[in-house]
Amino acid sequence: MAEPATASQAAAPAVALLKDELDIVIPTIRNLDFLEMWRPFFQPYHLIIVQDGDPSKIIKVPEGFDYELYNRNDINRILGPKASCISFKDSACRCFGYMVSKKNYIFTIDDDCFVAKDPSGKAINALEQHIKNLLSPSTPIFFNTLYDPYREGADFVRGYPFSLREGVPTAVSHGLWLNIPDYDAPTQLVKPLERNTRYVDAVLTIPKGTLFPMCGMNLAFDRQLIGPSMYFGLMGDGQPIGRYDDMWAGWCTKVICDHLGLGVKTGLPYIYHSKASNPFVNLRKEYKGIYWQEEIIPFFQQAVLPKDCTTVQKCYIELAKQVKEKLSKVDPYFDKLADAMVTWIEAWDELNPTGAAVPNGKAK
Amino acid sequence: MAEPATASQAAAPAVALLKDELDIVIPTIRNLDFLEMWRPFFQPYHLIIVQDGDPSKIIKVPEGFDYELYNRNDINRILGPKASCISFKDSACRCFGYMVSKKNYIFTIDDDCFVAKDPSGKAINALEQHIKNLLSPSTPIFFNTLYDPYREGADFVRGYPFSLREGVPTAVSHGLWLNIPDYDAPTQLVKPLERNTRYVDAVLTIPKGTLFPMCGMNLAFDRQLIGPSMYFGLMGDGQPIGRYDDMWAGWCTKVICDHLGLGVKTGLPYIYHSKASNPFVNLRKEYKGIYWQEEIIPFFQQAVLPKDCTTVQKCYIELAKQVKEKLSKVDPYFDKLADAMVTWIEAWDELNPTGAAVPNGKAK
Repeated sequence: MAEPATASQAAAPAVALLKDELDIVIPTIRNLDFLEMWRPFFQPYHLIIVQDGDPSKIIKVPEGFDYELYNRNDINRILGPKASCISFKDSACRCFGYMVSKKNYIFTIDDDCFVAKDPSGKAINALEQHIKNLLSPSTPIFFNTLYDPYREGADFVRGYPFSLREGVPTAVSHGLWLNIPDYDAPTQLVKPLERNTRYVDAVLTIPKGTLFPMCGMNLAFDRQLIGPSMYFGLMGDGQPIGRYDDMWAGWCTKVICDHLGLGVKTGLPYIYHSKASNPFVNLRKEYKGIYWQEEIIPFFQQAVLPKDCTTVQKCYIELAKQVKEKLSKVDPYFDKLADAMVTWIEAWDELNPTGAAVPNGKAK
Repeated sequence: MAEPATASQAAAPAVALLKDELDIVIPTIRNLDFLEMWRPFFQPYHLIIVQDGDPSKIIKVPEGFDYELYNRNDINRILGPKASCISFKDSACRCFGYMVSKKNYIFTIDDDCFVAKDPSGKAINALEQHIKNLLSPSTPIFFNTLYDPYREGADFVRGYPFSLREGVPTAVSHGLWLNIPDYDAPTQLVKPLERNTRYVDAVLTIPKGTLFPMCGMNLAFDRQLIGPSMYFGLMGDGQPIGRYDDMWAGWCTKVICDHLGLGVKTGLPYIYHSKASNPFVNLRKEYKGIYWQEEIIPFFQQAVLPKDCTTVQKCYIELAKQVKEKLSKVDPYFDKLADAMVTWIEAWDELNPTGAAVPNGKAK
C-alpha cells in the first residue's frame, strides 16, 4: 500500500453497476489527468465536474469520458440569486453537482485521489464497493461484532435480535484513504510523516445516535434518500472558515438519517490519497472551526427533530432553524449559514421539483 | 487462516505484560490440553480454572502452569447458600473465577479456542492485544473513522473534537474468532459450512448508547473498573435457557459502562475457534432466549440509571430492580434472575470486601 495502483493494475474489466443511475461528482481547479487511472472503473459513468475558481480557465478532461462541466458562471446563471449558497474558491462547491444531477446515486471524489491496492496488490474498484455498501442495508440499532453482516462470509452473530436483521436502507457510504490520512492541521503539523498503511477489511454501520467526521474525499450516497442534506455549507471566499464543508454535511446528514431510520456505513473502499495539503494554509482555514466544533458537536448530539419532519427537506429546514437559534451565539457566521441552508433547499426543490414532496424515509 | 497456528509458530518469546495483575479464567469439563499451544503466551500468568459438571472428575492441566482450580464442591463451600447464583453444567460458571480473583484484570477464554495466525502467518498473542486494548483509552462519545486512534500509525481524524481526544478508561476488550464464527443455532443450521476467514485489522470503541452481543469466548476486562457487572446469569442445569450468559453480562455491562463513562472495545485479537457446538443442542438451549431477547434488548436500550449509582455494584443492584419490575412479565425466570443478580453482588462484596465502597467510574 506504499504506492498507488498502476493503470495496468486497474485495467481489470469492471462491472459497471448502476451505470445509468449514478453520477460521479468531481470538484476541481485543474486538468483531470487523475481520471486516466480511474478509466476502467469510471468511464462507463457520467461525470459532473464542478470547476472552482476562475471560470475562464479551461479544464482538460481526458478523452472518452462522458461529462458535463459547470463553472462559476454556470452556477450563477442556473441558480440566480440563490447561487449565494454555493461556496466559491473551495471544494465545497461540489454540492452544486449533487443538486443538478438527475440520478439516484452520487459518488464524489477529490482529484488527488488515486486507485489504491488491496493487500494482495489488486487495484481497488472504489466505486463498486460504494455501490455494494449502498445497495445492502445498514444496522444502526444494534452493533454486529463481525461488522457488515451482509458481506459475503459474514452474518449476524449470536445474540443479534432477529427482528432487526432486515436492517434499514443505507443512505451514505463513507470510504477511507490509504497513504495520506485525513488529519486536521494540528495533527498534520505534529505528525508530518504519518501515513496510513493499515488496510482494514471492514464495512460497518455507524450506530444510531453517534456522530462521525464525514470526509468528502471518497464518499457516496443515495441522492433519492438523503440528497438534500448533503449541503457543504459556506466555505472559502468571503467566509471565515474552510475544511468544515464535509463535516457540516456529515453532522446534518447523520442527525437526519437517525431521525428518518436510514443508515450510514463507513470503512471500505480505500482510495490512495496522494498528497497532503499545506498544513499552514489548513490551519488558517480551520482554526475557527477547531474552536467552534466544540460547541457544534454537542449541538448536533442534542438535536431532536419533530415527528412531522418526514422528508429530508423538512428535516433540513428544521435543522437550519435550530442552527440559527442555538449556534448564532457562537458566531454571526452561523446566522448566515442557517440562511444559506434554507436557500440551498429552495434551490434544490427548484431544480428537483418532483422530489420535493416524496417522503425520503420513515420518521421515528 | 484456514488452520490454527502450530506450537512452534506460537513459541516466539512473549512479553508478559501485567504478569502479576491479570488472571486467566477458564471454564472446563475436560483436560486442558489446549493450553499446550498457548504455553508461550499464558505460562507467565496465573490461571483460575472453574471445573464444571461432576466434581469428582480429575481435570489434567499441562505441567508448568501456575493455577488454582475450583469445582462445584469448592464453589458451594466458599459461597454457601449464595452458590445458588453460580450456574451449573454451563460455562456460565466461569464468572465464579472473576469473583475469586484478586487481580485487576481478567482474561477469559474457552478451551476450544486455539492460537490464530495473522495474515502474515504469525501466531497471534491474543492476551497481549487485549492488554493493549485495556491499557489505552476508548472513544465512546464520537466515532473515529480510522478506528482506534491510539494504535500505532493511527490518530484522530479531521473533525474529531479536541476536547474528546483524551478518551475514557477502557473497561472491556472483546476479541473475535477466526474459523467457526459465533452464530446462533438457527444461523448454524442454515449455514453449517460458513467459516470466518476475514481478518479485520481493527480495534474500535462501541459507541455510547449502542448495545452489542458480547461473546465470552475471548474476552478481557478491567476487574477493578467493571468486574461486578460481569455476572453470567443463571444458565444450564435447572434453568430454562443457555447460551445467553455472556450476552446477559454484555448488555448489563454496556449499560453500566455508558452510565459510568467507561469504554468497551471490540475487534482484535482473534483466536482460532476450533469446533462448532451442536446446533440441535444449541437450539434447545437458545430458543427461549431468541424469543425473549426481542424484549430484553429494548429493555436495556431504554434502561436509565439514576445519578446516585456511582459504583458498579450500585448500578447492578439498580438494574436487578429494573429487571424484576419490567422483565418478570416476560417470564418468571427473570424474577429468579433478578434475585440471583442481587445474590451475586452480595457474594462479590463478601469476597472482595475493600472493593465494595470504591467508586468504579464517573457517573454521568
